[in-house]
Amino acid sequence: MLNRVRSAVAHLVSSGGAPPPRPKSPDLPNAPLAQTAAPPEAPRSPPARAGSAAPAKTVEARASFSRPTFLQLSPGGLRRADDHAGRAVQSPPDTGRRLPWSTGYAEVINAGKSRHNEDQACCEVVYVEGQRSVSGAPREPSQGQGLCFYYWGLFDGHAGGGAAEMASRFLHRHIREQLKDLVEILQDPSPPPLCLPSTPGAPGSSDSSHLVGPQSCWSSQKEVTHESLVVGAIENAFQFMDEQMARERRGHQVEGGCCALVVVYLLGKVYVANAGDSRAIIVRNGEIIPMSREFTPETERQRLQLLGFLKPELLGGEFTHLEFPRRIQPKELGQRMLYRDQNMTGWAYKKIELEDLRFPLVCGEGKKARVMATIGVTRGLGDHNLKVCSSTLPIKPFLSCFPEVRVYDLRQYEHCPDDVLVLGTDGLWDVTSDWEVAATVDRVLSAYEPNDASRYTALAQALVLGARGIPRDRGWRLPNNKLGSGDDISVFVIPLGGPGSYS
Amino acid sequence: MLNRVRSAVAHLVSSGGAPPPRPKSPDLPNAPLAQTAAPPEAPRSPPARAGSAAPAKTVEARASFSRPTFLQLSPGGLRRADDHAGRAVQSPPDTGRRLPWSTGYAEVINAGKSRHNEDQACCEVVYVEGQRSVSGAPREPSQGQGLCFYYWGLFDGHAGGGAAEMASRFLHRHIREQLKDLVEILQDPSPPPLCLPSTPGAPGSSDSSHLVGPQSCWSSQKEVTHESLVVGAIENAFQFMDEQMARERRGHQVEGGCCALVVVYLLGKVYVANAGDSRAIIVRNGEIIPMSREFTPETERQRLQLLGFLKPELLGGEFTHLEFPRRIQPKELGQRMLYRDQNMTGWAYKKIELEDLRFPLVCGEGKKARVMATIGVTRGLGDHNLKVCSSTLPIKPFLSCFPEVRVYDLRQYEHCPDDVLVLGTDGLWDVTSDWEVAATVDRVLSAYEPNDASRYTALAQALVLGARGIPRDRGWRLPNNKLGSGDDISVFVIPLGGPGSYS
Repeated sequence: MLNRVRSAVAHLVSSGGAPPPRPKSPDLPNAPLAQTAAPPEAPRSPPARAGSAAPAKTVEARASFSRPTFLQLSPGGLRRADDHAGRAVQSPPDTGRRLPWSTGYAEVINAGKSRHNEDQACCEVVYVEGQRSVSGAPREPSQGQGLCFYYWGLFDGHAGGGAAEMASRFLHRHIREQLKDLVEILQDPSPPPLCLPSTPGAPGSSDSSHLVGPQSCWSSQKEVTHESLVVGAIENAFQFMDEQMARERRGHQVEGGCCALVVVYLLGKVYVANAGDSRAIIVRNGEIIPMSREFTPETERQRLQLLGFLKPELLGGEFTHLEFPRRIQPKELGQRMLYRDQNMTGWAYKKIELEDLRFPLVCGEGKKARVMATIGVTRGLGDHNLKVCSSTLPIKPFLSCFPEVRVYDLRQYEHCPDDVLVLGTDGLWDVTSDWEVAATVDRVLSAYEPNDASRYTALAQALVLGARGIPRDRGWRLPNNKLGSGDDISVFVIPLGGPGSYS
Repeated sequence: MLNRVRSAVAHLVSSGGAPPPRPKSPDLPNAPLAQTAAPPEAPRSPPARAGSAAPAKTVEARASFSRPTFLQLSPGGLRRADDHAGRAVQSPPDTGRRLPWSTGYAEVINAGKSRHNEDQACCEVVYVEGQRSVSGAPREPSQGQGLCFYYWGLFDGHAGGGAAEMASRFLHRHIREQLKDLVEILQDPSPPPLCLPSTPGAPGSSDSSHLVGPQSCWSSQKEVTHESLVVGAIENAFQFMDEQMARERRGHQVEGGCCALVVVYLLGKVYVANAGDSRAIIVRNGEIIPMSREFTPETERQRLQLLGFLKPELLGGEFTHLEFPRRIQPKELGQRMLYRDQNMTGWAYKKIELEDLRFPLVCGEGKKARVMATIGVTRGLGDHNLKVCSSTLPIKPFLSCFPEVRVYDLRQYEHCPDDVLVLGTDGLWDVTSDWEVAATVDRVLSAYEPNDASRYTALAQALVLGARGIPRDRGWRLPNNKLGSGDDISVFVIPLGGPGSYS
């Protein structure tokens, strides 16, 4: 994300919106990392200093970078992918093995805001072997078969690429771990058991005969669906991923943080989990179906303010949980200023008191909105070292690693090859509306035969190119001469009824 | 609300869903209270004991009751309105002065769950006199004119009628107080000043020349709309109303609490503020536009759990903030049970530990959902004395007095006389869907001339009758033989383009 984490120091010398000059860094070897080889305990991030509070330092500290293995980049290709001047669009080669479902993918590096592309991507088919028999009975050959899920992930890093890199290698494994317990349950059409024995062999209790207590609010048990178990598994996998980053940062210095947008296809349903400001939409028969929402200081203002209100120690005496429409000056003490508290959506006037002169927890608008004047996104993984500039105050307590999960049942609709799920980092969406994406979907796919599996990559490339623009008038510009995105841009196009899809 | 506050003691003797037998109470004088006479400092509620934890006690403690003054009930009429056996539908008399906009209103008492009708209603035209000149300049005759707003309120009491009665008499006055500062600002088409002088005469600062600090998140000031000032005024009025109840309960024992659903029409826009489980919908050309949502332990589960998680002292060692699909038995310790934490929407298994045996903060489903096994609604006014049964643990910290405010611009659409805003307490909505209401709107209004001002009262009566049913087979039954609502039922029908409306 472009300037998602801001150094207040940088602003003291440059109050404009332009990105700070890119620091020089030594010509480091580009060592691509395989997506699947490393064991969970030993991430391959180099033991560089994290220093996530200051982007400049972070960039200098990075010693290597990688791109998704499915791009199959040679060392020369990796250098071209890392070239800020050319900003060549990268896609998997035509010649190699296609991505599952003939998924299309394209990416481009930023225009210079950080040394390397801090987006990462992952696309995998993951097999989950059941680890327990719920009933405890000996497993029949036909019983307890494992499960497969399809997996796509986009990770948009900030203040370093370590967190995004780590998430791209491990998050699907955490999801697999969370699903292991559920393999048999998810394949059994009867409702999930509410309680499982502590050891296989002891009976599970799924009936209501164990109800206790006379309270009528307990007179019936809640119905829990299979779908909600998958949602819970994904939610907890995000948390375990974040905890792994917290643990391993001590030894391996996981740099910065990342937004995570993840799609899981399992047993006929698509689960879209989003923590951050990436976005997913389905374009179906020309119609747009939003599959995520963005989590920013603006959209999560009330959650952040509530936390600051309930736990004022997290504000360290430096910030106020109240929101004001602009900074208050000391000479305005005693006057009455518009404000919003945590439980308000409207504005009202209040008399300015001494503690209102503190910096607001949430300030700014749009892409300039910030938590504690530092970070512009409120959900994601990592950021365990992130501190308010010139302070030891941690920002992590205000960030949430939990995604919002939306579910789309693929079986409820007969999809055609032009129906797609588009995932993009904010580099795409900052300059492209949902409707412009839908128009590009229509334009590009209609130029290809429905059974041409390369059409989705062509579409991903067109979307990335359309957001990047072309170099003109000292900038990357769109056809309307507005500035294109100077951010890293990454796009997955997942066909929902295409030739290579699940069907 | 029917059984919204449950006494856990009652459940120890009756675990079924049937309402507890109505306690006997002495035949008390029915003293109607005027809506507008009492000054804010001296509510007319009798100094009876509050005892909001136990409905039985509460009912016995009440010494008087009132119905809305606009019903113009005689002492005899008041007795008939208070008759649980007949459940006669009450409306303003045809002969008297009509309600503003020819608003329709109807209500009926419950089937015996409490001694009196605990719903209250208010309909007023309120004049707001400006109390300050923003500019400080001498007021021109044409300048600083006051403002009028139209006001409708439904208040659904629980654990006593005192809070609903008090809210029906004072909430619109609090709104008026909050709007006093805004009279001149709201009538000035330029953007509201961000800062006001502490005393009239000092200049207000509405420009951006006072910006300080180099932080780019402050490089522009937020735009604040007139609409958001009205929203903020209504939000703060709810809070002041709640604080008044907290103050005055000590001297006057304000009984129980109430849901509040309020409509304000001001300068072309309709503001619908809801705190509780009443509901407002617009029926426009047969289409339904939801204007509120309900706040219950189910819809607010995550807010409640977050509070219990961040402030465990509020749970008093008696409750756990985790949700389980049924009560856990001690013998299940060590087994694995489905649970949801505050940041989850899905379910997952966890090993049962000792503290999971505590009662869950949120339990039950639908109308049986409860916070701390006690209250089935999570927003509203009052409830300052509400405690968990057999405990000193207060429930109020989990309840919010803040409404959600939705805005509808009346000028964006040319309304016809059949377009209406329908407000109802949960007695209506428990047995009537939005679509059934829309069908009744169509059926009743088409039977009247468009300019017949009595049609909206006829519609309100039809809605109340349709939810109450008729006495048959030892119960109040609907035409389909299902049980009608045994709760208090109150309905406003506000015409959006009717003969008596603002136009």
